Amino acid sequence: MARWEGNARGRLERAALDLFTEQGYDRTTVAQIAQRANLTERSFYRWFADKREVLFGGSEDLKEQLVSAIEAAPADTGALPTLLAAFATAPQAFRPREFLRERSAVIEANPPLKERELIKLASLSEALTAALVHRGCNPQTARLATDIGIAVLRLTAARCMADEQADFAQVLSTSAADLLAVAADGIPT
Amino acid sequence: MARWEGNARGRLERAALDLFTEQGYDRTTVAQIAQRANLTERSFYRWFADKREVLFGGSEDLKEQLVSAIEAAPADTGALPTLLAAFATAPQAFRPREFLRERSAVIEANPPLKERELIKLASLSEALTAALVHRGCNPQTARLATDIGIAVLRLTAARCMADEQADFAQVLSTSAADLLAVAADGIPT
Repeated sequence: MARWEGNARGRLERAALDLFTEQGYDRTTVAQIAQRANLTERSFYRWFADKREVLFGGSEDLKEQLVSAIEAAPADTGALPTLLAAFATAPQAFRPREFLRERSAVIEANPPLKERELIKLASLSEALTAALVHRGCNPQTARLATDIGIAVLRLTAARCMADEQADFAQVLSTSAADLLAVAADGIPT
Repeated sequence: MARWEGNARGRLERAALDLFTEQGYDRTTVAQIAQRANLTERSFYRWFADKREVLFGGSEDLKEQLVSAIEAAPADTGALPTLLAAFATAPQAFRPREFLRERSAVIEANPPLKERELIKLASLSEALTAALVHRGCNPQTARLATDIGIAVLRLTAARCMADEQADFAQVLSTSAADLLAVAADGIPT
């Protein structure tokens, strides 16, 4: 059993995703999720505010972890290298691929969930930019580096989902190099 | 009088924004907007589905214009240069700065409007990526180029809002060069 299934929170996530996939997001209740996970509704609410948050529960932890990693980077590290180093500390955010694929499918099928995903991503983006500015980075540079960093992270996630053997840190490097190539192509020399 | 104020739609936008700023978004009704613009409610609904759409009415036009510009680019143009050339055709999307500043303030103050803005931006992003793919661009490259392009556009918009004298096309070039510098800084050599 994978680590993330070994605790109450992981079991609730797994149960919710199974039910969302089997019978649809709208038709699934918190009571059903708790029952499937062999837990009480009260346990459910200890971890999540509502059934929607089961799909986004990891995002606050990820944000905190990335902000801490940015704060811990050596003072003379550039904006984008700081972000990439922070992302490299969080491979666990890319939990079992099957889980991520099912989660994506549920979100894609439900516009309100897709909106929620956009809001969470925007909130992450603002937190990363603020952490860079806090280190003394120029705000415009911080914003640009964050936009680029998120683009690299998105590509990395897509590649890791598609390739069972992919190494997260290595794909992150390759994706950053690919992004530079696309960026360089856009500037008349 | 600027071009965008010279017609019914422009007058409705101006009236809505004035009322949102003066008395708040939630407390403003369609009837009030129409009255302020010296038009009927029926005219309002000819242009906009509801009061929220007054703030986002230009986004579908912008999307269509950019997609057309992408389709019209010479076949051998790279992904990012194609996008930047398309953006350069749309300086009118950056309408009078005062209007944009007030619009931003209203949106920032209302989380549901901020969500709507994110959704519109995601929809624009998807349309641009699809248009690049339609030209034969690799999907991952198309997505990367779009993410970079939107980052450049965002920076350009911020700079144009801050500087009354800024030339849109020139700021777009400068912003693309700045983005390349930030991207290049992230790759270990």
